[in-house]
Amino acid sequence: VIRRVAILGTGLMGASVGLALRRAGFAGSIFGWDRSAKALLQAREMGAVDAPPPEMEADDPFICAMAADVIVLAGPVFSIAEWLEQLGPVLGPGQVVTDVGSVKGWLMERAAAVYNGPGQPRYLPGHPMVGKEQSGTAGAEGSLFEGGAWLFLPVGGEAGEHEAEWQEWVRRMGARVVEMGAEEHDRLCAAVSHLPQMVGTALASMLAERFGQNPAEMERVRAVGGRALREMTRLGASPYSMWRDIAHTNAGEIERVLLALEQELAHIRENLRTGELRRSFEEANVFRRGLVG
Amino acid sequence: VIRRVAILGTGLMGASVGLALRRAGFAGSIFGWDRSAKALLQAREMGAVDAPPPEMEADDPFICAMAADVIVLAGPVFSIAEWLEQLGPVLGPGQVVTDVGSVKGWLMERAAAVYNGPGQPRYLPGHPMVGKEQSGTAGAEGSLFEGGAWLFLPVGGEAGEHEAEWQEWVRRMGARVVEMGAEEHDRLCAAVSHLPQMVGTALASMLAERFGQNPAEMERVRAVGGRALREMTRLGASPYSMWRDIAHTNAGEIERVLLALEQELAHIRENLRTGELRRSFEEANVFRRGLVG
Repeated sequence: VIRRVAILGTGLMGASVGLALRRAGFAGSIFGWDRSAKALLQAREMGAVDAPPPEMEADDPFICAMAADVIVLAGPVFSIAEWLEQLGPVLGPGQVVTDVGSVKGWLMERAAAVYNGPGQPRYLPGHPMVGKEQSGTAGAEGSLFEGGAWLFLPVGGEAGEHEAEWQEWVRRMGARVVEMGAEEHDRLCAAVSHLPQMVGTALASMLAERFGQNPAEMERVRAVGGRALREMTRLGASPYSMWRDIAHTNAGEIERVLLALEQELAHIRENLRTGELRRSFEEANVFRRGLVG
Repeated sequence: VIRRVAILGTGLMGASVGLALRRAGFAGSIFGWDRSAKALLQAREMGAVDAPPPEMEADDPFICAMAADVIVLAGPVFSIAEWLEQLGPVLGPGQVVTDVGSVKGWLMERAAAVYNGPGQPRYLPGHPMVGKEQSGTAGAEGSLFEGGAWLFLPVGGEAGEHEAEWQEWVRRMGARVVEMGAEEHDRLCAAVSHLPQMVGTALASMLAERFGQNPAEMERVRAVGGRALREMTRLGASPYSMWRDIAHTNAGEIERVLLALEQELAHIRENLRTGELRRSFEEANVFRRGLVG
């Protein structure tokens, strides 16, 4: 029953959703909009979104959204919030707004007044647990969601058929659908996603301060660094523009896990020459076995 | 002119050296020894080392070493030190001992009295900048050194032809030979190798404390965690038995970089809601561009 999807924000995530939908066999229309005309054109050229609907004279996000059964908000968290607030009053009760934001409690509060009540459109909070350190339309891939989790958060009110069907499309894109509440989501994502990002940024930033001033030293780091260095700093390439919003809107949970990690690092530092170091390694070994089998 | 190589320690590194030598076309003998009879047998079965020399009745590391032109010490740092001290007095001036230890200043001090003087064997300190989080012979690969750096540290005295030839074999194994002094080595490796390891261990250990006690929560982490989590904790699988020695013998340098990272993490934590966070992300972006182009 979903015939028209609108994707607002055709960067890495938004364009990947479009490509993945097509790859999964979605035959309806996919309207796209991006505040960057270049990103929108690129998304059209790669087939992630279609040409604009005929009733549209110029690219207009509101006309895109109003013409769609499902509207996917695919930008940084603050921009998702802005769209949620602006679209709520203009959409009808049969329409579903979903998103790809990495923080959910804050967004759900913003949406509460204008969604999911009688006569209101639906907001289905979503969050694919995939990504790349490089943002931008050019990196979009139809296979981006394959094998990853795509979280959905239950909301009150009466769900229409579009919501169940959207989750079915997400499964066809290759993702595992996982449901959880907002509190668990934001606590868990702080630990398994936001913290690893901040650690990658901190490590790369600290190494930049130490070696980056001196081109000869940086050349040495480049010549000598192996897989461990490349891997542990990969997330250092992530853009501030995206993470600013996540840091701001999930600050409490991120602070908590950052502090716990700082304490663990200090414990390791104080025990480099003692047998206490064994405990940290053995706990880490257990975690890895639990994580990857 | 190198006809016989002895590898003491046929775990991941030692067995990989044997396989890589064969792959590079080395046609001489490769003797092997390991304190674990099982690891030695496994290395022989995979063709990483040969059957023992005919003059040997039982597996004997001293006979292996004394029969070889080049002896590769491939165990944890403390075991390398022990072998260096025990072999120095029994080897002749034409023989070269080299190693794969990740800390060099401490080992070079241990070797100083019995190597590289007139009438003494040579010690050529070496360190391939590759590895895996899983130790053990079973993971050995002839391609392990391809594309990685292999560091050598200059020592005094008169180098024989075996040393230059060994470095040539290292190149044929696919590695880039890089030379540097002990102080630079230990400072640089603390930052680009030992620190990433401690961070991976700390992150995995802290997550184990937070989620590992509760199987349902750990299952949730497993279901939700994406590439960032898997990658940033991969090194958490590394064995204490190997890292204990590195932590102990390069503690001063590791403490310094750990402290700097703790400070950077605290800075990020204190600025999750401020524009100061931009600086950390932008510095990290610059480091990544410098590292991977």
